[in-house]
Amino acid sequence: MHFTSERRLDDGVTEREFTLGDIPGTLWTPASAGPAPLILTAHNNGLPKRDARLVARARRSAAEGYAVATIDAAGCGDRPRTAAEERARAELRRAMAAGEPVDEIFESLVGPLVEKAAPEWRTTLDALLSLPGIGGPVGYSGWAALGIRLAVVEPRIVAAGLFAGGYVPRAQREEARQVAVPLLLLLQWDDEGNPRQRALDLFDAFGTRQKTLHANPGGHTGTPWFEMEDGNRFFGRHLK
Amino acid sequence: MHFTSERRLDDGVTEREFTLGDIPGTLWTPASAGPAPLILTAHNNGLPKRDARLVARARRSAAEGYAVATIDAAGCGDRPRTAAEERARAELRRAMAAGEPVDEIFESLVGPLVEKAAPEWRTTLDALLSLPGIGGPVGYSGWAALGIRLAVVEPRIVAAGLFAGGYVPRAQREEARQVAVPLLLLLQWDDEGNPRQRALDLFDAFGTRQKTLHANPGGHTGTPWFEMEDGNRFFGRHLK
Repeated sequence: MHFTSERRLDDGVTEREFTLGDIPGTLWTPASAGPAPLILTAHNNGLPKRDARLVARARRSAAEGYAVATIDAAGCGDRPRTAAEERARAELRRAMAAGEPVDEIFESLVGPLVEKAAPEWRTTLDALLSLPGIGGPVGYSGWAALGIRLAVVEPRIVAAGLFAGGYVPRAQREEARQVAVPLLLLLQWDDEGNPRQRALDLFDAFGTRQKTLHANPGGHTGTPWFEMEDGNRFFGRHLK
Repeated sequence: MHFTSERRLDDGVTEREFTLGDIPGTLWTPASAGPAPLILTAHNNGLPKRDARLVARARRSAAEGYAVATIDAAGCGDRPRTAAEERARAELRRAMAAGEPVDEIFESLVGPLVEKAAPEWRTTLDALLSLPGIGGPVGYSGWAALGIRLAVVEPRIVAAGLFAGGYVPRAQREEARQVAVPLLLLLQWDDEGNPRQRALDLFDAFGTRQKTLHANPGGHTGTPWFEMEDGNRFFGRHLK
């Protein structure tokens, strides 16, 4: 892990850019002494890790005492896309504009992205936990499909806050039954791109007995500000 | 309003029993100086106001700075029941034991209970707000059907936390569209007596743009402890 930049924010949080092989990442660490619990924040594959709202949320969590890390996994954010990914994204735009069904296109795009992202996140986790000042336990926040995958394969993750706002591939809908860690699922009730019933079915499917659904009216980007506080309290119950 | 008993609890909360005409009630007030915001906590009609879990929740809210009041409204809790109410409750028990449909029996029982309870709660609210140490604003917590009614007819109520765990009469399902105050709806995902879809439909129907659904697995009485904290934070956003 090579740090390529470092700056100190107003609230004592340190923000560092890093690379780990081909993986670009950002790490926020709190001013507090002693090993901090770690939250991996994985945005939906369509947004880069530098997206302003995502960065604001990460800084807020860091100010509350968490180490927070994010990466652009293969094919996500600013990472180069394969020809197949470019074709799938173009086909997705075309089908959406034409009002055609998009499930199979999403499946062909997001399924492989999750498969490729999970090992990169685990490699990143190895590197993060070897840094001074970062301890366990580890939480996960964000992209639901990847969170399901990681919660199933990565025993160091002890709690997950998932945003039900993107396509969840068939494999992860199946794997949801195996998720055994505490979960908070956040749903925008009127999310234009995410059928409500599918999110409710996903919540129902999770195998864990400690799962909570929070739903609010409005579209994909309309999550009210207090849900960020609720998310931090959820991690506070399980990581601190 | 006549106070019939008073005692001081460990956390500085004062607990007073009162009567207001035929209405028996309990009022908890915090140690803090200055007028406290008020929460009306109306349990489902089947439980008396002295139920241990309800009392524990009221004391907790009072310890956090709220005045909290509850009553047994007509036909509810320890209040005498009319012959028609006794017949409806007996018929309900028989039908449930026989596995027969119970919606129409619930409608005939709960519909009139809500109609009779609402004016008693408003009378109580008048009396409470005339006491020193109790200011506005006013929140409502508990029995969903009554909360819908009060939120529609009582302009002094500015926020409502509703427990989706009882039968909501047709009139209140209709009135839900007129509710304009911020709402928190609490749903037990596997509530044996409360079909999940009906609660989701109710959440969808509420007219307010500020509504949040919290759902957790488990049966009617399995609400996790942290939802009480979340409820107090909801009131903190709207009453303080």
